[in-house]
Amino acid sequence: MKKSRSHRDQTATLEALTLLRVKALPVDTLRENVVMLARDCHALRPERFKGSRKVELRLNGRAIVANILIVDDPSLVSETEVGLTRPALDRLCAADGDDVHIGPAASPESLDYVRAKIRGETLPDDAISAIVRDLAGHRYSDMEIAAFLIASASFMTAEEVLALTRAMADVGTRLKWDRDLIVDKHCIGGIPGNRTTMIVAPIVAAHGLTMPKTSSRAITSPAGTADTMEVLARVDLNVDEMHAVVQKCGACIVWGGHVNLSPADDVLISVERPLAIDTPEQMVASILSKKLAAGSTHLLVDMPIGPTAKIRSGAYAQRVRKLFEFVGARVGIVVDVMVTEASAPIGRGVGPVLEARDVRAVLEAAPDAPMDLREKSLDLAGRLLEFDPGLRGGQGRARAQELLDNGAARRAMDAMIEAQGPPPRVAAPGHLVSEVVAPRNGRVTSMDCFRIARLARLAGAPTDPGAGLDLLKRNGEAVRAGEPLFRIHGEEESDFRTAVEAAAHDCGVVVSPS
Amino acid sequence: MKKSRSHRDQTATLEALTLLRVKALPVDTLRENVVMLARDCHALRPERFKGSRKVELRLNGRAIVANILIVDDPSLVSETEVGLTRPALDRLCAADGDDVHIGPAASPESLDYVRAKIRGETLPDDAISAIVRDLAGHRYSDMEIAAFLIASASFMTAEEVLALTRAMADVGTRLKWDRDLIVDKHCIGGIPGNRTTMIVAPIVAAHGLTMPKTSSRAITSPAGTADTMEVLARVDLNVDEMHAVVQKCGACIVWGGHVNLSPADDVLISVERPLAIDTPEQMVASILSKKLAAGSTHLLVDMPIGPTAKIRSGAYAQRVRKLFEFVGARVGIVVDVMVTEASAPIGRGVGPVLEARDVRAVLEAAPDAPMDLREKSLDLAGRLLEFDPGLRGGQGRARAQELLDNGAARRAMDAMIEAQGPPPRVAAPGHLVSEVVAPRNGRVTSMDCFRIARLARLAGAPTDPGAGLDLLKRNGEAVRAGEPLFRIHGEEESDFRTAVEAAAHDCGVVVSPS
Repeated sequence: MKKSRSHRDQTATLEALTLLRVKALPVDTLRENVVMLARDCHALRPERFKGSRKVELRLNGRAIVANILIVDDPSLVSETEVGLTRPALDRLCAADGDDVHIGPAASPESLDYVRAKIRGETLPDDAISAIVRDLAGHRYSDMEIAAFLIASASFMTAEEVLALTRAMADVGTRLKWDRDLIVDKHCIGGIPGNRTTMIVAPIVAAHGLTMPKTSSRAITSPAGTADTMEVLARVDLNVDEMHAVVQKCGACIVWGGHVNLSPADDVLISVERPLAIDTPEQMVASILSKKLAAGSTHLLVDMPIGPTAKIRSGAYAQRVRKLFEFVGARVGIVVDVMVTEASAPIGRGVGPVLEARDVRAVLEAAPDAPMDLREKSLDLAGRLLEFDPGLRGGQGRARAQELLDNGAARRAMDAMIEAQGPPPRVAAPGHLVSEVVAPRNGRVTSMDCFRIARLARLAGAPTDPGAGLDLLKRNGEAVRAGEPLFRIHGEEESDFRTAVEAAAHDCGVVVSPS
Repeated sequence: MKKSRSHRDQTATLEALTLLRVKALPVDTLRENVVMLARDCHALRPERFKGSRKVELRLNGRAIVANILIVDDPSLVSETEVGLTRPALDRLCAADGDDVHIGPAASPESLDYVRAKIRGETLPDDAISAIVRDLAGHRYSDMEIAAFLIASASFMTAEEVLALTRAMADVGTRLKWDRDLIVDKHCIGGIPGNRTTMIVAPIVAAHGLTMPKTSSRAITSPAGTADTMEVLARVDLNVDEMHAVVQKCGACIVWGGHVNLSPADDVLISVERPLAIDTPEQMVASILSKKLAAGSTHLLVDMPIGPTAKIRSGAYAQRVRKLFEFVGARVGIVVDVMVTEASAPIGRGVGPVLEARDVRAVLEAAPDAPMDLREKSLDLAGRLLEFDPGLRGGQGRARAQELLDNGAARRAMDAMIEAQGPPPRVAAPGHLVSEVVAPRNGRVTSMDCFRIARLARLAGAPTDPGAGLDLLKRNGEAVRAGEPLFRIHGEEESDFRTAVEAAAHDCGVVVSPS
């Protein structure tokens, strides 16, 4: 009896010891959960976390796992405090002065499955679900996420990709629509200026189909569709607002960040991008989990192939396509993969404002509208329209062109912009301008998509929406020495100069003597 | 002409813009380089580093790469400052008020080789060298280190392991000795209390062989040999001090941290341990790179096999042994692998002070000295002595026993302790003591090495050297209900209680009815 009593006392004391007062620190990690503890912290000794450095914090039923930094100044974080940085503060819904429970974090049990994957095993569905739940719960460190990604890279069966897709869609928001046909499009990416969604969605909506589009912001590219749409309209809508827009307009183009579709995928992407890892398995699971969560029934995948695009060979494209079709069929999404040629950027602008200008020009049928962007958008919209059982086979493209040329698509876009609300700021092309000129008479014989994207990003895109590149010559076009190939726009002096210098070193456009 | 002039001006401005004043922050990351920048920092806009978040800092010819945290309070870090945490501050040799150059860090080029490895390619020697240089230069983030480790896990050829071993030994200190025969021993680990090095080294030295031993501190175990030796003597010697001790005594037991042997290995270990990844390839490269850098010519590897040890099957042990022999032969180290049975801890103490007590007892031939530790040490020392060409084959163990029993080994140890210097603090077994008792009459039928190590670590070892476990019953021994199985020692209240509670839940020792 005595023994059990003393045990209970000890537990009580221990619990009391693990309470710390929250100090909200003016520090933002952008991504990982990080807390700061005094070296002589009352609750636990942070130096003991060298090997496996995570702690768990609990407050009002919420729990987060965080890495530790040690503080040696009580005025920053005292021995009775835990310093919380953003986004950990937001994820825990904690505020200055809250009392939180803190203790060593148990390593997520699903890491055992990651280790099995590292050993080359094939994982059952429930193991993959457990991993996905811990990913979405921010319980994996960067190194653990990387371990899962690399162990999975090219060593996943199609069934594992299917399980991953389903598990990722199940965690987070699932959108429901009261219509049978929900179409969507997705571009594999890597082609600067390829802003077709903003032309395709209004065409499809004008025809009467439903296309509730959630887009991403750029992570490593100069603009995501959400960044470019934000030049024209508000994009950070929540689920209810998004529903209202789609109810009214048949389509929307919003940022996926507030909608929380497949949050585990966002966690994986946050490590894939810096590592520049892009496997077909991860790509298919990523895209289809988002579409499944978004309630899509029909998906058109734009897959550009080119020497500097993400997908560089037909054989590789075929492998990706088969996997899309396999997983799509099993999760109930009709997937149509459209392979497009991609030897150069599409449109003229690269960067949010300059791309939005191109989109406007196409929708308004302006005489200087970039024809390649118009043609590609019509091809894609035509394929999407053919998902409509009421349309005769082969009529999709003509119908798309009709809706674009008669102004119906422009009006649909205006309605979407009206419904989504005004953009957060009025943005114009960056006032800092520098021209890059042809070094000789000749012809443009290649344009490096990767380099051009990089220059636009160096110039400040998408942080500065007006920054980017305005391409004045197309691939194959004849040029004279000294004639401008493209303009660099910037809003901010130092970034602009960095881009100008980088372009002087390698502008990405090759002019060969005729 | 004008153009090139203006370009030079821009460069000059840019360089000026990237100067920031160092503010030394009272924050310790324990491992990764981290800097804090104001959100509106003059030199660069930290929010743009979301995708690939590293910056490079330069000062007096030194350069480091660091991750960024964003600060929103100018009194912590202002727009003209860069806040440096430890160990970044030390690695850059920077001080408060220094002006450092800062800019976006180029991604290490060797990451292309890591990506090739992820794709399943076999890497040539120079690719592996490039990776190792960047690892040792702290230019990889945790996720990048994990990517290399996982991509390499079990997909390395023996030639790649050889190249990795050589490359790791080449980066960092190379010790040189003016003797032909430099012996060393290494234990694969995982067995609590297995502190044989501190008995073997004095025996070998007493015989006249040279054994300059560098040991590690514990990362995830309750004690490394360096932690236990530090109970008796100073261990943080530099290279010159180490040479002096070996010159005088024939052997030393120091912490490898100040000697900087194979620093790339330390970087890899810092990620392997939290991920609990242990592949034969990484193990062999890790151990042999350290021995190659240490100038060893003959190495005895103690490889315990047991149900709860690191190596759990004979087949696996054989695979590791072959790899040791292959790489050892090519780097010029004679490797002798000794497979030992490991069904239970060795010795009685687990934790620095308690283990040091056992070592002393064996060296002093105390009546209560743990016989298993004595016997195993004699086996190992005997095998090491047989490296001496002057000793007749089969005489090693008898010679080892002679040197232990006649006090020569004890005197050799005393000389080493004298030469290395006094320990940083006098440590005694923790004053907080709790006994774990047998639940029934019967016999101890199993002792879980992993669990016992974990309990000792929870109790505070090795941070508190006096914390740990004192095992009172051996595997196979008869016990009566209520008789103590082991004692838990602690120095610090909350850790001690955590260990006591964890032991009440699962003490790791099974008592079965006879």
